Formats: sequence, C-alpha cells, structure tokens
Amino acid sequence: MNFTISTTEGRARRGQLTLAHGVVETPVFMPVGTQATVKGLTPQMVREAGAQIILSNTYHLALRPGDEIIAEQGGLHRFMAWDKPILTDSGGYQVFSLADIRNINDSGVKFKSHIDGTVLDLTPERAVKIQENLGSDIAMVLDECPAADASDNVRREAVRRSIAWAERCKKAHTREDQVQFAITQGGLDVALRKECADALSAFDFPGYALGGFSVGESPEAMHAVLPECADALPFEKPRYLMGVGRPEDLLAGIASGIDMFDCVMPTRNGRNASAFTDSGMLHLRNAVHKRDSGPIESGCPCYCCSNFSRSYIHHLFRSKEMLGPILLSLHNIAYYLRLMERARTAIEEGRFALFHQECLARWHSDT
Amino acid sequence: MNFTISTTEGRARRGQLTLAHGVVETPVFMPVGTQATVKGLTPQMVREAGAQIILSNTYHLALRPGDEIIAEQGGLHRFMAWDKPILTDSGGYQVFSLADIRNINDSGVKFKSHIDGTVLDLTPERAVKIQENLGSDIAMVLDECPAADASDNVRREAVRRSIAWAERCKKAHTREDQVQFAITQGGLDVALRKECADALSAFDFPGYALGGFSVGESPEAMHAVLPECADALPFEKPRYLMGVGRPEDLLAGIASGIDMFDCVMPTRNGRNASAFTDSGMLHLRNAVHKRDSGPIESGCPCYCCSNFSRSYIHHLFRSKEMLGPILLSLHNIAYYLRLMERARTAIEEGRFALFHQECLARWHSDT
Repeated sequence: MNFTISTTEGRARRGQLTLAHGVVETPVFMPVGTQATVKGLTPQMVREAGAQIILSNTYHLALRPGDEIIAEQGGLHRFMAWDKPILTDSGGYQVFSLADIRNINDSGVKFKSHIDGTVLDLTPERAVKIQENLGSDIAMVLDECPAADASDNVRREAVRRSIAWAERCKKAHTREDQVQFAITQGGLDVALRKECADALSAFDFPGYALGGFSVGESPEAMHAVLPECADALPFEKPRYLMGVGRPEDLLAGIASGIDMFDCVMPTRNGRNASAFTDSGMLHLRNAVHKRDSGPIESGCPCYCCSNFSRSYIHHLFRSKEMLGPILLSLHNIAYYLRLMERARTAIEEGRFALFHQECLARWHSDT
Repeated sequence: MNFTISTTEGRARRGQLTLAHGVVETPVFMPVGTQATVKGLTPQMVREAGAQIILSNTYHLALRPGDEIIAEQGGLHRFMAWDKPILTDSGGYQVFSLADIRNINDSGVKFKSHIDGTVLDLTPERAVKIQENLGSDIAMVLDECPAADASDNVRREAVRRSIAWAERCKKAHTREDQVQFAITQGGLDVALRKECADALSAFDFPGYALGGFSVGESPEAMHAVLPECADALPFEKPRYLMGVGRPEDLLAGIASGIDMFDCVMPTRNGRNASAFTDSGMLHLRNAVHKRDSGPIESGCPCYCCSNFSRSYIHHLFRSKEMLGPILLSLHNIAYYLRLMERARTAIEEGRFALFHQECLARWHSDT
C-alpha cells in the first residue's frame, strides 16, 4: 500500500491510495456491497458509474455463503466479478446494528445468526481470518461500536476493548496483499477519541478509521467533532469515516480531513424511489413527475439520466417494475461518485470551501 | 414493411423482416416488455443479449401510464429508450387471461382495471388508436381469445367476432410507419382455423398471427395442429405464434413454418431462479450449486455466464439479492435469442431438422 497527499486546502486533502487491485483517488466514496453485490446493480454498472473501490461485509459473508466457500471460489473479487479494490468491514458495526442478537466480552462477540440462529463466534482473530479468506484489499480490525446514547462507562469500555482487539488483529494478520486499518471509538467525546487514536497510532497501522458515527447522534453533533477527531489521526495515513452518510455529511467529512466514506443511502434511497440531485431529493413516486420529460438531473452523465425521463421512472415505480430501483440506485451511486470527483477537483484548484458552500446552498434551496 | 424468405427447409423458413425501426432476422424471439420494460433488464442489456425486437402490451400501457402520456413523451420507443422494432399486442389475450374482470360483446371488451377498478372500454378502434399512440412498428388487431376448454359455440363465436374486429381494425388504422397483423383463432379445430385464416387473408394484412395457443391445451396437442394452422396462413407473409413458449415449442413452431414468437418464460423463470440450458433447466436455489464454480452454461457468451459462477448466483438467490433475478433473466433471454440464431443458421445450412432433434435429445437427457 502507498498513500500520498498531493494537495490540501485547510483540512481537506487530495490524495492517492495504491492498493493490491488498483489506485484510488481520494477523497473517495465506496458503494456498499454487503452480500457481495451492490444491491440492484451489475459490477459493470458500478464500474461505469465511476466506482474505484467498494465495501463488503464480514459478518454477512461469513454467515452466507461462508468465507471458506468464497476462498474456494477464488476470493471475493473473483466471486463477485469485481476486479478493483475492495474494503471489508470487520463485523464491529453489527455489535451496534444487531445489538439484540449478540453477546460481547473481552474474547470477542457471539452473534446468533439473523438467518438461521446458528452462532457466529467473532473474535478478533476470526475477523482477521474471514477477511483474509475474502481477500479484500483493506481489512478492518474488529472493534466494539456502541450506540450514541451509551453511558460513559460503556463508551470507555468499548474504547479499551477496541484497542486491545486492534492489537490482536494486527498480530493475527498474515496476508501481504492486504492492509489492515484500525478503528477509533469514543463517540462524541473528543478527549476519549484522542486517547483511542493515540493508543492505536502506537501500533502504526497503514490506515485509520473513525467508527461509531451515524449511530443515533444528530448530524450537527457529528459535524461539530469531526475536525478534532480527524486531527487526532496520523496526518500521513488514509482516514476513513465509517458508514457516513448524506452528501452534506461527506462534504463535512472532507472539510474535516477525511479521505474515505461508505454508506448504503444511495442504493437504499434508490430502491425507495428517492433520487439525489444538486437541487435536493426527488421522490419519483410523486404525481408531479407523471408527465415530466426531463431526466432525474440535467447534465448528469449516468446511464439513467442519459436515457430516461422522470415520467418513465415514475411509471416504473408506480408499476412496481424492478427497473425503477435499478435505475435510481445507479443514478444515486453515480451522483455520490461524481460529487466526490467534483470535490477532488475543487481541492486541487483550491476552491473546495466555495464548492462546499455552493452545494449546501443548492441542496437546501428547495427549487 | 418488407418480408423476404431466403431459404426454406421443409416448412421451416429463414426470412428477413424490415420494419420502421430496423431489420429483423427470422425466425425471431421477441422478449416481453409488458409495462414498457423487459422485467429486470435495462434496454442496453436486452440489446447486448441480442434482441432485435421486443413486445409490449396495449392493455397494461393504456391503463398505466396511459397511451396519451406515452405519445406526449415521444412514443414508446423514446419512453423506454428502445430504438429497435417493437410489436404491441392488442389486449385480445387479456380477454382470456383477465376473464374475471371483463365483459365482451360485438362492440368490444370492457375491462375493469386490475389496478384501480376503472373501466377500459377496448373496442377494435380504441385498440388501434392506443397502438398508434404507442407508435409500435407492428400493431396487432383486437381479437377474442377463448380458453382451450371453451365450447364449440364459444370458439366459433370468437372466430366470427375476431374476423369482424380485424376488418374494423384495418379500417381504423392510419399510421403509415406502423403495420397491422391479423390474428386467427379457432383453438385446436383445424377446419375452423382454416376458415378464419381464409377470411382474414381476404383483407390482405401484411402479417398473420396464430392466437389462442398456450391457453390451457397440452403442448403435444398444440404441436400436432401447428403445421396445418401455419399452412393455412399466406406463405409470403410473416407468421407469428403468440405467447409461445418453451424452447421445444419454439423449435416445433419453426418446424411448422412460424417466423415470430414471444413468451414471458425467460424472464419469469429467471426471476424464480430457473435457468435454461442446452442440458435442460437448472434450479439455482438448489444446494447442489453451492460450490459449483462453473457458469450457468459453458460456452454461453452472455454477461452472466462470462462473469459469474453457479455458486455466486446460488448465493444471490439464497440472499434474496436483486442481482440474482437480473442475471438469470439476462441469461435466459440470451439463451432464447441464441437458440433462434442457431436455428436460423441451421435452416440456412439445411440441417434444421437435425438441429431440432439434437436439441430435444439434450434437453431431455437429464445430464
């Protein structure tokens, strides 16, 4: 792995991350392919929308089809026919999102499978092994991700445990074509975040993530602490804000010095008939689109906007046709990826702050 | 429109049909896009799978979004971004498939919409007007399609009415860039089919269809009468067997002198995890495919088979991921289209009868 920063503007960074399966221009958005597929899209569509790297999930793939089967099938890249970089999470987020079906202690997390109730015993060592079986370019350490409203004690325990687990993950890691990123916790407590970041920095991981955001706190609360939380991470290493977020959250992250993002919103909203545009969200089931011959977004070069009208997409959703979710997922992914591309160019040209302001003004203008 | 037959082998014909939006090599299979979309596929995928012409449905589009809206949006080709030929049915098949919600008399069919209960008053003249609004290359006349177990009286009445309606459709038709095909009825009664065909032939339509098959009779019963039913149609005009069928039915149709086919099976079966191959059907939810690294069909050039394993597609269906239905719909459409391409080449080379036999042997060998 190699990471270089070519330009900065304030905290914002324009970088280049070289991984086993290719080069990633940062800041970058990673479409989410939880179950070894970006929902509703072929890998060809994801590539043509401009994706440089995607994310997939350890917990889900370990349960189904099983990481050994994916290894047998030649690894995750071959299995899902995606030849660019892949980042895999560690299952730590499921400590939060599947809180009802897991038990956690210092040795690891035991999940009762959401599919059939069998037990997945996710230790730090197992999380490393699963991701080595998957063969992702970037593996995440196992962490404990508490909810935003967790008590100080729980939050402090999660930090302590996440540090100890990061060390165990580093020891267990063997694949040389895969790098391992550490994850800081600490919620909105900046001092605790800093403490966690300092402890993890001592292990000299090749990259660092901010976990434990978008877990119930307000976006404003997150935005307020992001700059200091990012500052606490090593400057010269890639920084990844996990599971975030809306377009405005991505730009706030970039302004805070974050390089990498992932979120299910583009595909989830797309399946639900909502489209991201520079003028804000469109809801394609609404009758106002019935006779609108314009594209979702004028000037958007994606396959959806190049070929289809709002009227047609409205018809597809009203008729419950699969092509509606397919086309809007595609547009939304393309929108996110293009937003990041525009942000990269803006940083290069020293006008990111202005670009950021202009985007916010347009998104909230209700035109 | 122009139709030329370049070669025959027995009753089988190798032809070329020139329509407003392009040339169609026959025998041809038309993927079904009932609601202005071939279910689960982008038009780009349908094109890349080798489709030359698709079918869409008058009844469904008249109800939603409405043929006037499609006309306003520039016609069906523009609306669904499909620039090759389109054939539209007339709604006559819904006389059979929606028998519970329609009333029929000599003036036309009244449907109570399956969507919201509003009434669609489908006269022959309205069926013509809807299809002119849609702007399809081939429009079908309105017919009455009885079930296979209808009484002789009902069958005879349907023939009488279908002939009268065909004449009214011909009179109402105005678009010069659209041709109108007639439809024979008569069920399995060959004498009645011949009577119907003779009456319709007097109107000199540019093409003729066999309606009223695949409405409950056995495939064997249909195969038995197909040659005589096709013989009853003008030799020099394109012949279309509506709504048929399985791969073996298509080859039986070609052997009987049919040039055009449509059927929902490739996409419907694909959505349900069933794949067509030269060795018969595969059911991708079956555990036997869990570790199978081979493609759905060896040597199939489609996007699905070029990129993905049975193991992966099994995983997609088990995980209820949209990409499973998408990929199998694509493969099945490609399979049907390639089967027709192989049949065309076989006719050209005078070995269609052998090809037909070999296909049947492979499909039923259970290997």
